[in-house]
Amino acid sequence: MFETAEIGNKIDKATFKAQEPELRTALLELQRELAQSDLAVLIIIGGVEGAGKEETVNLLQEWMDARGIEVYAPWDTTDEERERPRLWRYWRALPPRSKIGIMFGSWYTDPIVQRVYGNMSEADLERELHQIVQLERMLVNEGVVVLKFWMHLAKHVQEKTLKKLRKNPKTAWRVNDLTWKYFKKYDDFVHVAEEALRRTSSGFAPWHVIEAEDRRYRELTVVRTVLDTISASLAEARQHKRSKHLVPDRPQPAEYNIIRHLDLTQSLSRARYKKKLDAEQDKLSRLSRKLREQRRSMLLVFEGPDAAGKGGAIRRLTGVMDARNYQVISVAAPTDEELAHPYLWRFWRHLPRLGRVVIYDRSWYGRVLVERIEGFCVPEEWQRAYAEINQFEEQLTDFGIIVIKFWLAIGADEQLRRFEDRKLTAYKQYKLTEEDWRNREKWDAYEAAACDMVERTSTEAAPWVLVEANDKHWARLKVLQTVTRTLEQKLE
Amino acid sequence: MFETAEIGNKIDKATFKAQEPELRTALLELQRELAQSDLAVLIIIGGVEGAGKEETVNLLQEWMDARGIEVYAPWDTTDEERERPRLWRYWRALPPRSKIGIMFGSWYTDPIVQRVYGNMSEADLERELHQIVQLERMLVNEGVVVLKFWMHLAKHVQEKTLKKLRKNPKTAWRVNDLTWKYFKKYDDFVHVAEEALRRTSSGFAPWHVIEAEDRRYRELTVVRTVLDTISASLAEARQHKRSKHLVPDRPQPAEYNIIRHLDLTQSLSRARYKKKLDAEQDKLSRLSRKLREQRRSMLLVFEGPDAAGKGGAIRRLTGVMDARNYQVISVAAPTDEELAHPYLWRFWRHLPRLGRVVIYDRSWYGRVLVERIEGFCVPEEWQRAYAEINQFEEQLTDFGIIVIKFWLAIGADEQLRRFEDRKLTAYKQYKLTEEDWRNREKWDAYEAAACDMVERTSTEAAPWVLVEANDKHWARLKVLQTVTRTLEQKLE
Repeated sequence: MFETAEIGNKIDKATFKAQEPELRTALLELQRELAQSDLAVLIIIGGVEGAGKEETVNLLQEWMDARGIEVYAPWDTTDEERERPRLWRYWRALPPRSKIGIMFGSWYTDPIVQRVYGNMSEADLERELHQIVQLERMLVNEGVVVLKFWMHLAKHVQEKTLKKLRKNPKTAWRVNDLTWKYFKKYDDFVHVAEEALRRTSSGFAPWHVIEAEDRRYRELTVVRTVLDTISASLAEARQHKRSKHLVPDRPQPAEYNIIRHLDLTQSLSRARYKKKLDAEQDKLSRLSRKLREQRRSMLLVFEGPDAAGKGGAIRRLTGVMDARNYQVISVAAPTDEELAHPYLWRFWRHLPRLGRVVIYDRSWYGRVLVERIEGFCVPEEWQRAYAEINQFEEQLTDFGIIVIKFWLAIGADEQLRRFEDRKLTAYKQYKLTEEDWRNREKWDAYEAAACDMVERTSTEAAPWVLVEANDKHWARLKVLQTVTRTLEQKLE
Repeated sequence: MFETAEIGNKIDKATFKAQEPELRTALLELQRELAQSDLAVLIIIGGVEGAGKEETVNLLQEWMDARGIEVYAPWDTTDEERERPRLWRYWRALPPRSKIGIMFGSWYTDPIVQRVYGNMSEADLERELHQIVQLERMLVNEGVVVLKFWMHLAKHVQEKTLKKLRKNPKTAWRVNDLTWKYFKKYDDFVHVAEEALRRTSSGFAPWHVIEAEDRRYRELTVVRTVLDTISASLAEARQHKRSKHLVPDRPQPAEYNIIRHLDLTQSLSRARYKKKLDAEQDKLSRLSRKLREQRRSMLLVFEGPDAAGKGGAIRRLTGVMDARNYQVISVAAPTDEELAHPYLWRFWRHLPRLGRVVIYDRSWYGRVLVERIEGFCVPEEWQRAYAEINQFEEQLTDFGIIVIKFWLAIGADEQLRRFEDRKLTAYKQYKLTEEDWRNREKWDAYEAAACDMVERTSTEAAPWVLVEANDKHWARLKVLQTVTRTLEQKLE
């Protein structure tokens, strides 16, 4: 795969100079169009040492309007990064819509280096690469143009280049012991990189291998590729926008479905509830401290119809936990920074550190519930969301985060009773809005969407727990017990 | 000061129950009004162990709409926090407009504990408290309602309470060795806390000392104080809004001023420039690595008229630095998350970690330049900004961040020449907008504002460097030399 980047491509100074004004103008025009669009651009620059990666980034910044470019060059990881799944630091650095992000060093760096040094098995590398392909597919689907460059030098060219860099006092620092250590592994790096590139070069995010020996050839090729890719994506986005129809979906639930199947008559007397609640809360209090000590983390998701009792169930958990150790995220309308990123970004940003608990009062499942039913996204978006969500949660559980998802189920009549009750109590009225009544009219559609959701996203590692919630005592206790039992299982 | 909180206030159950519905309704109504307003609310809960701080927060969350409340309970600091000025972690956690933030543990915690254990001198405590008062004044001015509660227990009451907590298996974990260690220092804590409260109880952010022995008395008192304070603030904000006039300011520069005084004819031939640039860039390359090694950080600010050459000067710096080690922040329109916070928030969020460089292409000085001249803020806002900015920068330099601020000065005729030049070169046209021409008409006002700015914010620790920028060579070299000389001085 790298042979095509060892054929001695060169561009002379005159040709370069002649093309520069036109290319710069085109880049700037493109940036202006990008600023008006819904797209973000992510440029990943990988490749061998001495292949001019930094110079290329400097050139892009000089030729374009640097104010629309964000460069992310990860160095050592911070503990906030180490305490979250590997991709978290990159999610943090994703460019928002209408901007260009350049990553020097990316989600490819670590797997390649680890594999070369034998710290990662062939199988684990495959798995990582597979996750990367999924991530990039999702980004592209969410409107991020992903451009990947691999700067290549043949072995003897790299050696020559590194020696030259070392000789020049200005650049000598760039060639250190690590550089030579890597160079000695040149063949291994090429081998692993080739595999990584081959496995991750997709139609939606292909790799561009650049012959990097000649500066001018390298830079013009990168600039032209950037130009071509972004303008094609902008054209496609314009096309796509015209044909984009937001249509509400009104699925009908199956007559026998997993939610209707629940026995909502289950209940607990106040006395028994009090006693059991007490015991379970004691356990949770103890287990949540153990979670902290063992540096595990937990993520709880609460979904369910309006008035299903999510807030009350959450408070029975948090009431006995150390306030420093949990955070409740109530999902409301996204901010504009959140809207400018792929929809999972706003959930990534709140992931718990080790030893912490994050509780989502509504969550990313909004995508396949309210957004589907109300037509806030196109069908293609919520349809692919099941897989995207599973991949997201897989990253959480792979990292060791304990994930439990609760669906609080109530009957339509019970909801009505609670709505009426809210109308009567002054301090409960705020909980009841016009929207709640409107949503109620779509009861069946929401039920069907919830069934689809459970069917497609309940996994062994991150299961859905259906909670019969017509009786609040029963529901709260079941939630508590599920959490304590899970913790008992998962903690040492 | 705490005597008033040791008089045995109690409220019986019936009274409490009777008041609950009315108070809950009032709280919720208030929250609705808050959501429509430009105010944020910050509730700080301090006080002794066992005084029911967590219970009070739980009550507030239960009685109000928890979706509008963000609780921040800092525990151990992360390295990302330790590598920035002490207040950074609290800035991160400030509630946005229309929300309520509750801080358990706040900027008071550390100074009080450190002082009690003798790790902080009386003078340093004074200094910290002074900074806190300044911070709170700024927050209040920026529309944050600051409510501070100190939960007090007399010594014998605390002892009794802690023993009771320890006896109950549910709460025993809350009383650990540290709790008793602190309790032994009860008198010292009371002494230091009293001083801290006295020094920081201001008209705009007074302390409310709460007698905490009786749960019902404590909770009702907090709730009533929250109600009274927020409703008074909302009423005041409505009043204030009506009388708020955004007026552009058109200051006239003094005939002899610091900017006109500059000798803009200074220049450098291309040959001399090339040679010197080379030498200075070598130095910077070396020094920036030394900065990294010595874990210092640097913050550079660039301001100046349109077309003064800020971007070019910045690129001469970044061209020789390791991309992983610096970040350029181009200040454009704020996002809505930024607009929802005090205006310095968007700059706090980008502060460099240890060993890093952050370069601001335009900065917080926009407040006293463009916002003043264009009337984007009221006069009172830009007038107080000088002091706020000085306090902000003092925190940076106190923490050891190297701060240099560059004003790139060009003459009005030189600007015109550059504008005309931009019109002619296709790939420079994007740099020239209608706004640039409009700003040009207010040349004198901008010059006068810049003079005021330099006069009021050039400090020894964070000086303004005026750069004669009619000649780009001269300007770029002066910037480079200033940076290298400063680094030579400040690094070991």
